[in-house]
Amino acid sequence: MKLSARNQLKGKVVEVLKGATTSHVRIDIGGAVITSSITNEAVDELGLKVGQEAYAVVKASDVMVGVGD
Amino acid sequence: MKLSARNQLKGKVVEVLKGATTSHVRIDIGGAVITSSITNEAVDELGLKVGQEAYAVVKASDVMVGVGD
Amino acid sequence: MKLSARNQLKGKVVEVLKGATTSHVRIDIGGAVITSSITNEAVDELGLKVGQEAYAVVKASDVMVGVGD
Amino acid sequence: MKLSARNQLKGKVVEVLKGATTSHVRIDIGGAVITSSITNEAVDELGLKVGQEAYAVVKASDVMVGVGD
Amino acid sequence: MKLSARNQLKGKVVEVLKGATTSHVRIDIGGAVITSSITNEAVDELGLKVGQEAYAVVKASDVMVGVGD
Amino acid sequence: MKLSARNQLKGKVVEVLKGATTSHVRIDIGGAVITSSITNEAVDELGLKVGQEAYAVVKASDVMVGVGD
Repeated sequence: MKLSARNQLKGKVVEVLKGATTSHVRIDIGGAVITSSITNEAVDELGLKVGQEAYAVVKASDVMVGVGD
Repeated sequence: MKLSARNQLKGKVVEVLKGATTSHVRIDIGGAVITSSITNEAVDELGLKVGQEAYAVVKASDVMVGVGD
Repeated sequence: MKLSARNQLKGKVVEVLKGATTSHVRIDIGGAVITSSITNEAVDELGLKVGQEAYAVVKASDVMVGVGD
Repeated sequence: MKLSARNQLKGKVVEVLKGATTSHVRIDIGGAVITSSITNEAVDELGLKVGQEAYAVVKASDVMVGVGD
Repeated sequence: MKLSARNQLKGKVVEVLKGATTSHVRIDIGGAVITSSITNEAVDELGLKVGQEAYAVVKASDVMVGVGD
Repeated sequence: MKLSARNQLKGKVVEVLKGATTSHVRIDIGGAVITSSITNEAVDELGLKVGQEAYAVVKASDVMVGVGD
C-alpha cells in the first residue's frame, strides 16, 4: 500500500519489547533510533524481529517542532 | 522543558510553508527529511526560519511500523 | 508496505477538498463515510481522485469509544 | 455531548481485552471491525461489554489514506 | 454520547479562527486557554461561537509530560 | 526546549500508575486533572513522582471540541 503519511523512515528493528497489550518497537534509522508503541497483535502479524528491515511511519500532523535545549 | 516524547530528532529547518491557519515545516535530520504540520501561530512564536536548528518531536504512540515495499 | 495500523478500511474516494495546505478526503467504506485530513502534498503524490479505490488507515491508539446518544 | 470528531461509527462491541493499564476494544461497525486502544479506566467507567452498542470515534486528522495493495 | 477520552475540560469558547479547511478554536477552561485545531465543517455543524460553553476533549495517549523550564 | 505544541498546562503530578510497558500519569492543573498515557521509560527518564511540578503538553490537532452534555 502507498500511504499518505509524509514520514516513512527506513531502518532496522533493534528492539521489540512486549507488554500485556502494548509493545515498544525500536527502529534504527541511521543516526537516530525511533521508538514506536503499537499493539502486540501488530507485532505478531508483521512478525517483527530484531535485525529486520522496517519503516517508522508518522503522519505530519503528529510531528511537533522544538527549538533550543 | 524536558519532554516525555521518546522521539526528539535534531536537524535543520529546510522549508517553512505557511497556509491559511496551518504551516508545513520540513526538518532535515541527516539522511531523511521530516515533515511537520503545525499552526501558523507556533511558527511565528518559535520564529522558525530556513537554516535554523530544530527538533522534530514525536510521541511513541504516534509512530506506526511498516514492513515490505 | 504492510502496516502495523489495526484499522485499514477499504472504500472509494467520494470527495477531495483542497485547502491552502490541508486537504479533506472522504472515503465511502460501505455504510459509512470516513473523513481524513491530510496534506495537499499527499493528495498530489497519491493522485487521489473521486471514484478511486482507497483505504482509510487509523492507528488503534487514535480510536476512542463512545456510548449512548 | 456532541463532538467535533468527523468520524463516529456506530457498531457493537465484539471484544474487550484488558492489559495492565491499556485495553483493546473491538467494535463491529458492519462489514469491518475497528480496534481501539483505550485506558482500562475508560473501559470500567463506560462499563464496556461484548454485545453492547458503541461508537468508534476518530478525529479526521488521525485518518491516513492508502492506495494500492 | 459518553466518551472514553480521559480529558474533557469544560470552558467557554473565546476565539474561532477559520482557515481554508481548518479552524482554530480557543476554549478558556479557567486559568488556561486550550487551542484546538478542527475542520471548518465541525465548527459549522456544532455552531461554535465566542461565548459558548464547550469542552476541550483529549485522549490520554495524546498527552505528553514535560518537566523543568 | 521551546515547543510548537499550543497547549502546555502547568500543574503538579498527583498519580503515577505503571503498567507492563505503559504508565498513566495524572497532573492536577488547578481545577482539573489531566490524564496522560506515556511509556514507562519516559516516566523513569523524567523521574516523575507525585508532588512534582510538571506540564501536560498537547498538540492543537489532538484537541477535539464537544458541546452539550
